[in-house]
Amino acid sequence: MIRIGIYGYGNLGRGVELAIRQNEDMKLVAVFTRRDPEKVKLVDPSVAVYRVEDAIKMVDDIDVMILCGGSATDLPVQTPYLAKYFNVVDSFDTHAKIPEHFANVDKACNESGKIGLISVGWDPGMFSLNRLMANCILVDGNDYTFWGKGVSQGHSDAIRRIEGVKNAKQYTVPVEKALASVRNGENPTLTTREKHTRECFVVAEEDADLDKIENEIKTMPNYFADYDTTVNFISEEEFLKNHAGIPHGGTVIRSGRTGESLENKHIIEYKITLDSNPEFTASVIVAYARAAYRLNKEGAVGCKTVFDIAPAYLSQKTGAELREKLL
Amino acid sequence: MIRIGIYGYGNLGRGVELAIRQNEDMKLVAVFTRRDPEKVKLVDPSVAVYRVEDAIKMVDDIDVMILCGGSATDLPVQTPYLAKYFNVVDSFDTHAKIPEHFANVDKACNESGKIGLISVGWDPGMFSLNRLMANCILVDGNDYTFWGKGVSQGHSDAIRRIEGVKNAKQYTVPVEKALASVRNGENPTLTTREKHTRECFVVAEEDADLDKIENEIKTMPNYFADYDTTVNFISEEEFLKNHAGIPHGGTVIRSGRTGESLENKHIIEYKITLDSNPEFTASVIVAYARAAYRLNKEGAVGCKTVFDIAPAYLSQKTGAELREKLL
Repeated sequence: MIRIGIYGYGNLGRGVELAIRQNEDMKLVAVFTRRDPEKVKLVDPSVAVYRVEDAIKMVDDIDVMILCGGSATDLPVQTPYLAKYFNVVDSFDTHAKIPEHFANVDKACNESGKIGLISVGWDPGMFSLNRLMANCILVDGNDYTFWGKGVSQGHSDAIRRIEGVKNAKQYTVPVEKALASVRNGENPTLTTREKHTRECFVVAEEDADLDKIENEIKTMPNYFADYDTTVNFISEEEFLKNHAGIPHGGTVIRSGRTGESLENKHIIEYKITLDSNPEFTASVIVAYARAAYRLNKEGAVGCKTVFDIAPAYLSQKTGAELREKLL
Repeated sequence: MIRIGIYGYGNLGRGVELAIRQNEDMKLVAVFTRRDPEKVKLVDPSVAVYRVEDAIKMVDDIDVMILCGGSATDLPVQTPYLAKYFNVVDSFDTHAKIPEHFANVDKACNESGKIGLISVGWDPGMFSLNRLMANCILVDGNDYTFWGKGVSQGHSDAIRRIEGVKNAKQYTVPVEKALASVRNGENPTLTTREKHTRECFVVAEEDADLDKIENEIKTMPNYFADYDTTVNFISEEEFLKNHAGIPHGGTVIRSGRTGESLENKHIIEYKITLDSNPEFTASVIVAYARAAYRLNKEGAVGCKTVFDIAPAYLSQKTGAELREKLL
């Protein structure tokens, strides 16, 4: 059994707990939290919950620590810190800061002899992997990434900070016309506005100025100003009924050409459609936790990403079983 | 520069020659053929063409030999033979015989200290990889593979063997209704007939009995009897105009569930749409030839499949470049 610890228990942490239950070679040993452990309710109440400070007392009990904090301030500190003691996996997703994060985790791992697997999830993660492989296969071509339809937590938060807004959810929606053009091999050059629209569902406070809220959303720089945005005011009841979930998804497409005069078009598309973004991300992370464990057992050390992991390491099956059943 | 040899020069061999031209870190050193070398016309006439017997004289000149023969009789003999002298890559696609082929190639590689990368292409190959990864992520779920729309060489050949048939092309076509049900997470159980239809375009000899040909096609066991098959008789002119290409493609879908009571559905779909089946397959093989070369340089030895190759090995870029640009 691979013994797992979860460090941070929000939506992602809960998703990891659930994913571990679907993998019979794994066992959740403990959850670590910054909150009062008494107040953290797990799916399985028999699993121990400790304060984060107690994590390093359990170096002999945990094979892989899965970090479920945020990329802004948690992971840049937590992943290098915990990599001094454990094999770690995180879902660090601030693309621009990946090189710096990699260097910090790599240093810690090389001192501890552990594996640190960073930026695991779907973007970065499975989408990155598909971008890489499609680029290596279709050398001459263009990349396209569409997100959604799905909930953007950051954009939903931005709306909630507007005066008069009680609750809000924002969906990022790919523009079907743009998708169709890419799938058709037309290699369009697409502006931000042409790729995605933004749909907002807002519960306003009583007596709030709806026109003012709508205008504030639509003109918000960085978040909405560059998009075609629709704002729907709905009741709290409808919000809870139809917008409680955290669906997401997206599509990575490589459109390329081969042939003596590049006359043959090829499209590689990877598409995911998810009822629960955190549960899917957690499922990816848990598969890679197996890889981290197995690689470290074989003697591998240092920071790695999905690019560095041979796919067979994700599976419980032996090489012979995989070749027989899945190749 | 990675120095490549091509062993066998049909559609796939030509595709490999073309793919090498798109990869600036590679150079085609020679093509080996069972035909009269004088009669083999390459895209680049300056490349040397030799008899297959001469291949082993060039062990010092070729880093990776790419085998482009057939799976029925060529590769089971050629790949183990050449693996005694070269790093080799093949596209062996007889699924049931992969374990045996693996064992033979592995033995040869372990004696020579080379890498043998087998069953590289899209199915087996990229489809296998997507099946494996999607299975590891969505542990509870169902797999679906749809092929086409595309030309099945084997089925086209079977039609051409019928008396009175001058030329023929058979397209395998996925049933849209079945695809839609799978994408919708309905997890249908599908019969052979419900998954694909077969469309045949036939040029008949003058005075041939068309009804008899159509009946022979539609009732042919293994090939057509289990499918809804349509037969279109067309002129030779129309055949050459509209059915000269070798398009193909397909879709691998994993439909899975997560959550406390498996209440959340997820779909992972990998789809390829190809103008030229052999040129795409060749492009995959050439990317993996790079991996074989680099792995062997690092000291790795033995038979491997796409499951065993960390994706970063496919790329010319360094790890740091990949993390910065594609993660």
